[in-house]
Amino acid sequence: MRPPVSLPRTLDAIPETWSPRIVGQVNDAHLKVARIEGDFVWHSHADTDEAFYVVEGEMTLELRDGEVKLRAGDLWVVPRGVEHRPRAERECRILLVERAGTQNTGDAGGPRTAPERWA
Amino acid sequence: MRPPVSLPRTLDAIPETWSPRIVGQVNDAHLKVARIEGDFVWHSHADTDEAFYVVEGEMTLELRDGEVKLRAGDLWVVPRGVEHRPRAERECRILLVERAGTQNTGDAGGPRTAPERWA
Repeated sequence: MRPPVSLPRTLDAIPETWSPRIVGQVNDAHLKVARIEGDFVWHSHADTDEAFYVVEGEMTLELRDGEVKLRAGDLWVVPRGVEHRPRAERECRILLVERAGTQNTGDAGGPRTAPERWA
Repeated sequence: MRPPVSLPRTLDAIPETWSPRIVGQVNDAHLKVARIEGDFVWHSHADTDEAFYVVEGEMTLELRDGEVKLRAGDLWVVPRGVEHRPRAERECRILLVERAGTQNTGDAGGPRTAPERWA
């Protein structure tokens, strides 16, 4: 029997911020964890919704028409095609649910694009 | 802008155990929360994997060939078709990710089948 994945321990072991690690797959969706701090890039995902769940800390999802503040225990789903920019003033730890194969920088691409990696 | 869903507050408001509430949708997947306590029924889901993430407490996933013990922060995915029986000695609060339309009792059906409900 494979052991469960501890999200806190997995997060502790990720050296970089903004570098998601896949922790599970449900059908065609990946569950990923990431440590985030600072501002990310504006981007959208044309073919997938993206759930943000805050495991620890606080973060903001900037949207073109407002923003959503998330605290530990909060969930928000960015609908496909909606431009967003995650940011966190201090380190925040999150769980993401999105289609397998989704690039962290979406349509924006660029230097902050992280490789797809299992934990 | 719709506000985030607080999982702890949503869980506090569910009167029944073993009665999931949908808190979000990502493509064809539902994210659900549930309070569980005691033993559930043996069942499987032929057409969906099912992720169990423990928000608070401890639970066990009984499988035909062993069991998996999960604590707060742990994740385990039951592959489609695999018979399982969740149980918790004391109240445990979980987040589930599975295909939209999945019945909590899977192929077993019966009196513990809960209606599909949004939080």
